[in-house]
Amino acid sequence: MCVQRKLNWDPCFANRMAGMQASEIRELLKVAERPDVISFAGGIPDPALFAQSHIRQAYDKILSDPVLARKALQYSVSEGDAGLRAWIATHMASKGVDCTPDNILITNGSQQALEFIGKLFISPGDTALVNAPTYLGALQAFAPNQPMYDDLQLENTNRTISSYHSTAKALGSHVRFSYVVPDFANPTGETMSKEARIKLLDLARGLNIPIVEDSPYYALRFDGAPVRSIQALDIDQCGTIEHARVMYCGSFSKIFTPGLRVGWVCARKDIITRLCLIKQASDLNSPAINQLVMLHLAQTTYDTQVNNAIAHYRKKRDVMLEALEKYMPKGAVWSRPKGGMFIWLTLPKDIDTTAILPKAIAQCGVAYVPGDAFFANKSAKNMLRLSYSLPALEKIAPGIAKLATLF
Amino acid sequence: MCVQRKLNWDPCFANRMAGMQASEIRELLKVAERPDVISFAGGIPDPALFAQSHIRQAYDKILSDPVLARKALQYSVSEGDAGLRAWIATHMASKGVDCTPDNILITNGSQQALEFIGKLFISPGDTALVNAPTYLGALQAFAPNQPMYDDLQLENTNRTISSYHSTAKALGSHVRFSYVVPDFANPTGETMSKEARIKLLDLARGLNIPIVEDSPYYALRFDGAPVRSIQALDIDQCGTIEHARVMYCGSFSKIFTPGLRVGWVCARKDIITRLCLIKQASDLNSPAINQLVMLHLAQTTYDTQVNNAIAHYRKKRDVMLEALEKYMPKGAVWSRPKGGMFIWLTLPKDIDTTAILPKAIAQCGVAYVPGDAFFANKSAKNMLRLSYSLPALEKIAPGIAKLATLF
Repeated sequence: MCVQRKLNWDPCFANRMAGMQASEIRELLKVAERPDVISFAGGIPDPALFAQSHIRQAYDKILSDPVLARKALQYSVSEGDAGLRAWIATHMASKGVDCTPDNILITNGSQQALEFIGKLFISPGDTALVNAPTYLGALQAFAPNQPMYDDLQLENTNRTISSYHSTAKALGSHVRFSYVVPDFANPTGETMSKEARIKLLDLARGLNIPIVEDSPYYALRFDGAPVRSIQALDIDQCGTIEHARVMYCGSFSKIFTPGLRVGWVCARKDIITRLCLIKQASDLNSPAINQLVMLHLAQTTYDTQVNNAIAHYRKKRDVMLEALEKYMPKGAVWSRPKGGMFIWLTLPKDIDTTAILPKAIAQCGVAYVPGDAFFANKSAKNMLRLSYSLPALEKIAPGIAKLATLF
Repeated sequence: MCVQRKLNWDPCFANRMAGMQASEIRELLKVAERPDVISFAGGIPDPALFAQSHIRQAYDKILSDPVLARKALQYSVSEGDAGLRAWIATHMASKGVDCTPDNILITNGSQQALEFIGKLFISPGDTALVNAPTYLGALQAFAPNQPMYDDLQLENTNRTISSYHSTAKALGSHVRFSYVVPDFANPTGETMSKEARIKLLDLARGLNIPIVEDSPYYALRFDGAPVRSIQALDIDQCGTIEHARVMYCGSFSKIFTPGLRVGWVCARKDIITRLCLIKQASDLNSPAINQLVMLHLAQTTYDTQVNNAIAHYRKKRDVMLEALEKYMPKGAVWSRPKGGMFIWLTLPKDIDTTAILPKAIAQCGVAYVPGDAFFANKSAKNMLRLSYSLPALEKIAPGIAKLATLF
């Protein structure tokens, strides 16, 4: 009786679920928790940088004040805390994006901003232009909307604007937007030049599409001068954010802590209104208490925290680059990031990084993310992502040395 | 030049956005913030019940402990904190739902659980069975997936199981699931009888569909004995949650505070695995710090807090029921909730509650939610939802008296 009464679930699921698969990063995060593993896998902030006592004081301050505490613990508006939005608007203005709090929506980390943008723009079968490789989490965020992808190529390419259009058209699709991580990209660590950013704006204009600029690592520049954000360059050309085609996703996760889950989107007002409607339907609002704490942290220690993080991660990057130089075999090449958390390693063509990973963990006690995961379309098997952010400084060189024995 | 360069955004949006509209509740929440308005609108907990000092101590305790603090401030697993999931599993077991932490996913309030369930089950054009009226937030959560709706009728009806199937089929659709708020429903305040719950299980079995049981108010029962949850009744019949067709959505928002945004889904493991994948793509994880605080609160003061809330809201309900009796004109009828936060008021047929609302706010300084908002299909205009949870006890009777002058 019981068996006959059981629901057959398989036909119940929406067809969008076919495109959603478990992430390798996620499984690796579990392995990375084992203390005996040196993990170069997740792009995870070093908890040594969390300003625990300052964060504790911020919660205490807010929850000691009866008026603030009621605000912190109640439902709040979907747009996010007005004070935090004002701080972010000023912060964006300092980067050349003249805007108001009405141009800002608070999200649960920038991941949620990507999910909302996917919902707003992608109908099944639409094409998004993304780098190959690109941020895996963006591909996951977009997946429920069943997009197709074309490889965005801006430098050393003979691809024309119309080639993107005709490639999509041949598949019965339309190019809907372009997504980029311009600063110290996840996974490559590379930064788009100003020229590439302007090329991207030209391409977007030609295709009549918006651009998603995802820049959670922007503040973590170790060397050289910042490159103007694509959104700022767009505003330089068209005069106001209300005419701009760029939506900028920012985050406090890599600067202060990812545990409070506070990120934002900056865009023209009517886009923020639409994204806010999506936010409301998704989870009503982000926790007010965490937003108030983040505002306090941003107001009091943003610059200090950024400078600490830069000094801390620069050292780790330097140690990893030195170790790669010392231990990696001939034929291996890697990116030299000027900031952020990632180095992209390309090995000789016959090496399959996905196949080697279990051995790396079991024999060497070292984890990384195989490059495969970061490609929307077909990929090369001989690449991998290394993050230097989490492991202890003194573990980095031994970890790279062990890993190199496998290649 | 600038004008020509502007993006024409209108053709850029996904067609799912057509079904997403701004909520009246949302606009009313803004009005309700004005201190001169007596708001019976939002179903908002009374901040007098927030255990501010206990919550402050919980944050302080976690952030004073170096190991806990690092966990609290770091990225965490998408499923949610293991300790909190274990507490919830035990809590569910006490209500007749024998389950393990693997049957629990933590979400940003139960609103996010509804959004994920919509994503998992609804393809565009699918039919969901919902009460008329039903929770507005569920309709909003499902909207991006472009469902159709049929009115779920369980009592005083001659609708047959096959009539739901044939109604959907005539529209080229399939019935995909049924959604109910069985305890002290939003918006009606009504509770499904055990008989109705068993009828619903029979219906779901006949249609081969799952059931979404959304029960954020369950613990807030003022009178009478609890009715066994639909999920527990389902397990009574089929023996194990792994064969059950019910997904249960719970929340701490109405018991402790909505500001931490902690809710959950309880369901068979493979559904939790799928929902977890959706969670990961949506916002990676809910804030670990808030989950650890909620665990501490649940472990130390769940029963006390529930008892306080019951005593507090029972008084408010009683005052509102008395005031309705005293002031409402002949021909008005209302529900008599045994718990929760809502009373549903039906007025004589010629009264349009949407049209009257601006006058109610401007002339009487009283806010409510017009009934219209809670119907998936066509609605009657002469209904409205009153919430007694937020306004001060002494404001309730005067507010109802003023409101009654309009009818």
